[in-house]
Amino acid sequence: MNGHVHLEESDMYESDGKLFLTEAFNVIMEEILHKGTDSEEKVCEWKDPDQLRALLDLDLREHGESHKQLLQRVRDVARYSVKTCHPRFFNQLFAGVDYHALTGRLLTETLNTSQYTYEVAPVFVLMEEEVLCKLRSLVGWSEGDGIFCPGGSMSNMYAMNVARYWAFPQVKTQGLWATPRMAIFTSQQGHYSMKKAAAFLGIGTDNVFIVQVDESGSMRPEDLEAKIVQAKSQDAVPFFVNATAGTTVQGAFDPLNRIADISERNGMWMHVDAAWGGSVLFSKKHKHLVAGIERANSVTWNPHKMLLAGLQCSVVLFRDTTNLLMHCHSAKATYLFQQDKFYDTSLDTGDKSIQCGRKVDCLKLWLMWKAIGTHGLSERVEKAFALARYLVEEMEKRDNFKLVCKVAPVIKERMIKRGTMMVGYQPMDGHVNFFRMVVVSPQLTTKDMDFFLDEIEDLGKDL
Amino acid sequence: MNGHVHLEESDMYESDGKLFLTEAFNVIMEEILHKGTDSEEKVCEWKDPDQLRALLDLDLREHGESHKQLLQRVRDVARYSVKTCHPRFFNQLFAGVDYHALTGRLLTETLNTSQYTYEVAPVFVLMEEEVLCKLRSLVGWSEGDGIFCPGGSMSNMYAMNVARYWAFPQVKTQGLWATPRMAIFTSQQGHYSMKKAAAFLGIGTDNVFIVQVDESGSMRPEDLEAKIVQAKSQDAVPFFVNATAGTTVQGAFDPLNRIADISERNGMWMHVDAAWGGSVLFSKKHKHLVAGIERANSVTWNPHKMLLAGLQCSVVLFRDTTNLLMHCHSAKATYLFQQDKFYDTSLDTGDKSIQCGRKVDCLKLWLMWKAIGTHGLSERVEKAFALARYLVEEMEKRDNFKLVCKVAPVIKERMIKRGTMMVGYQPMDGHVNFFRMVVVSPQLTTKDMDFFLDEIEDLGKDL
Ligand SMILES: Cc1ncc(COP(=O)(O)O)c(C=O)c1O
Ligand SMILES: Cc1ncc(COP(=O)(O)O)c(C=O)c1O
Repeated sequence: MNGHVHLEESDMYESDGKLFLTEAFNVIMEEILHKGTDSEEKVCEWKDPDQLRALLDLDLREHGESHKQLLQRVRDVARYSVKTCHPRFFNQLFAGVDYHALTGRLLTETLNTSQYTYEVAPVFVLMEEEVLCKLRSLVGWSEGDGIFCPGGSMSNMYAMNVARYWAFPQVKTQGLWATPRMAIFTSQQGHYSMKKAAAFLGIGTDNVFIVQVDESGSMRPEDLEAKIVQAKSQDAVPFFVNATAGTTVQGAFDPLNRIADISERNGMWMHVDAAWGGSVLFSKKHKHLVAGIERANSVTWNPHKMLLAGLQCSVVLFRDTTNLLMHCHSAKATYLFQQDKFYDTSLDTGDKSIQCGRKVDCLKLWLMWKAIGTHGLSERVEKAFALARYLVEEMEKRDNFKLVCKVAPVIKERMIKRGTMMVGYQPMDGHVNFFRMVVVSPQLTTKDMDFFLDEIEDLGKDL
Repeated sequence: MNGHVHLEESDMYESDGKLFLTEAFNVIMEEILHKGTDSEEKVCEWKDPDQLRALLDLDLREHGESHKQLLQRVRDVARYSVKTCHPRFFNQLFAGVDYHALTGRLLTETLNTSQYTYEVAPVFVLMEEEVLCKLRSLVGWSEGDGIFCPGGSMSNMYAMNVARYWAFPQVKTQGLWATPRMAIFTSQQGHYSMKKAAAFLGIGTDNVFIVQVDESGSMRPEDLEAKIVQAKSQDAVPFFVNATAGTTVQGAFDPLNRIADISERNGMWMHVDAAWGGSVLFSKKHKHLVAGIERANSVTWNPHKMLLAGLQCSVVLFRDTTNLLMHCHSAKATYLFQQDKFYDTSLDTGDKSIQCGRKVDCLKLWLMWKAIGTHGLSERVEKAFALARYLVEEMEKRDNFKLVCKVAPVIKERMIKRGTMMVGYQPMDGHVNFFRMVVVSPQLTTKDMDFFLDEIEDLGKDL
């Protein structure tokens, strides 16, 4: 009956597969980790989309390719991709490479399991518990809950959904038609994921009230109070305030204690989006920036940003000890979460998630932490702050620096085509475009800061 | 001012890091890919949670550990993790290992970028476009849209949210208070992510109407019609029907053409959850199972299941050509999606996502596809079906097989502790527990099927 299907032999030659993987690993080492981290090499080899399409030959065909061709493909993908591990990649809130974290990531990929039950992920269920516990203790909580999510935006959504369930538990079964209109508060400089979350959760972006910020980009608590009054006057129930600890563009910190006071007075859930700034909790010197964070109900924190754990590594932490996260999300699927198992099924934490299969994101952070210790992570954060300070001081010495920003798009284009570095720019209310320089990689030195300043000047010298 | 922070030198010794990574790669090869794929070795080395905690020493401390200790940690993580690449791992809807996909995954991890803009992910933006286009053409669509999501549950949520926006665009800004109550339809055997999605999107699980299935687990279209009538009688607007192509437990296929007729008649969005069964589209022999899929508005498909792309690899595809996905999800963040860029910003597809940073999930599938071609993937699917058929035939020859299922939990415990194989079980309406045997890995042969049957008998022989 099975015609041409060969059931007696396996379709793959294990040894060929392993050989390919080993050779490809060498290409990865050479092309990405040797060349990509060398400041003499380019950060990116810019190609127009049409050129790149032609170079890559992306088409998928009926028949496979040879070992040799495939290795060339690995080389091409590496070659034309941006080297985010390069010392002059300053374009996003992640950069650099941590070899222990990367090891954890390769191990995760090879083990290829899903973080839902103790049965299929015994090591990672326990490890996630440990890492979450440690992160919570840095926040200042000896108890609580939490979960790794696919990115900070999802972590923020989780927080909003759990908060909604806490305020209106009937929402899980009856939906929003059984509740009053709700209001969410976040600042002008809060991350756009708050709006995405409000839309996705069915609350609507109009119900996100935007609170003003001061010059530094930090939320004005008086305006939060005003916006709460405004929401109430529209018969919307204030239930969720998002305070940002480390805004995406300016790196500002909202005044958490003031916001906590207001949240408590109004019976609201307080969330802190510390996706970017949470890592200051590692630093005795800088953690005053998030004073009051322990008063929050939930915290988002992305170790893939300032700590270099690698994409994606994001957690949402809860102060709650009543299993709200599980109650809010559980669906009790019997094929996965059988209750007659022979071990303690409270370890099957998968039902806390809105995902089913869930990637293991804890190992990379755990291994890196084991490798350099809490102390090493704290040094990493302090170095990033010190470099940023150095950069500001040096920039202030250069008169023509403010001017350069008017022509950011042109400079950016030249920069990318030259390939020497990558840094993002953006407009901001009442300002023209400016460059957002992100320094997180511990491989950086003051020389790289000087290079950045010189290069920007050079790129714009004729403008 | 910087005290003890050293700004003149980098905190990491590149060469040490690379050495560690290389040595760890060898451990990974040895412990996971050599031993883990050897059927003489155990699938898992079962430990109770307390034992395992003690063995792993998970605690995170102030100071880091030595190179040697860390390598031992890599070995321990590998050792105590379940080998999902083992030929006798039948426990989930994923299993086995494809070395080309794994290469793509290691490359992805090392490149560490986010799939939101052409600027930081030029290769992957174009590659995602190509892979989605090819998958859509297998569905039968020459145009359309789509996106890779972190798992099938998220893909299903995307579909539900886009459908809701299509039906009631005001929901994005005003929320569900501006719409009538909505009704969703899915079968008794549909995946639980539908309920999770309804809860998360604020629609509520009570508004998920459960349609009956026949004996094989396939949706009864007459009952779908009855449930639509029932919903309407409760003033709920039917807007979304989920048909399952390959149910999670029985692998049943809902009758898509019949469901499409009903959806069209009622002006509903039809989604096909083909997370598991979508891969039959590669097989000329089996694709009749999803006849009518081209009439759907959206399709979820997980190449990480039957095709072995590795976790996570899931897409949601749309027939829509009006940019609904973007309109539904966009937030137009100016720091990321500047409109004055020097290249065609329609390539910055990140705003179609509800995530911000998004992992690259296309490369592993693309590289595997390049390696074995459409033909190789089709053989893979056909082999899985043929092995399943073989298994059923052999099982029918064994009288005592039905009996064994009453004692599934005990057999499962013995199995895990023996470590020879892993297979899941679950209860089903009106039946006792039974084992769900999943055969996807192309490394399998009929011998592995015989082993499964013998082993289950042996584990239960005294019961
Ligand atoms: C403050 C803040 N919150 C949330 C996010 C979203 O994180 P992710 O990209 O992991 O979704 C970002 C990303 O830059 C951010 O800066
Ligand atoms: C039919 C079906 N849909 C959706 C899913 C969810 O997929 P994921 O685990 O990737 O979220 C599954 C998982 O088993 C499934 O079987």
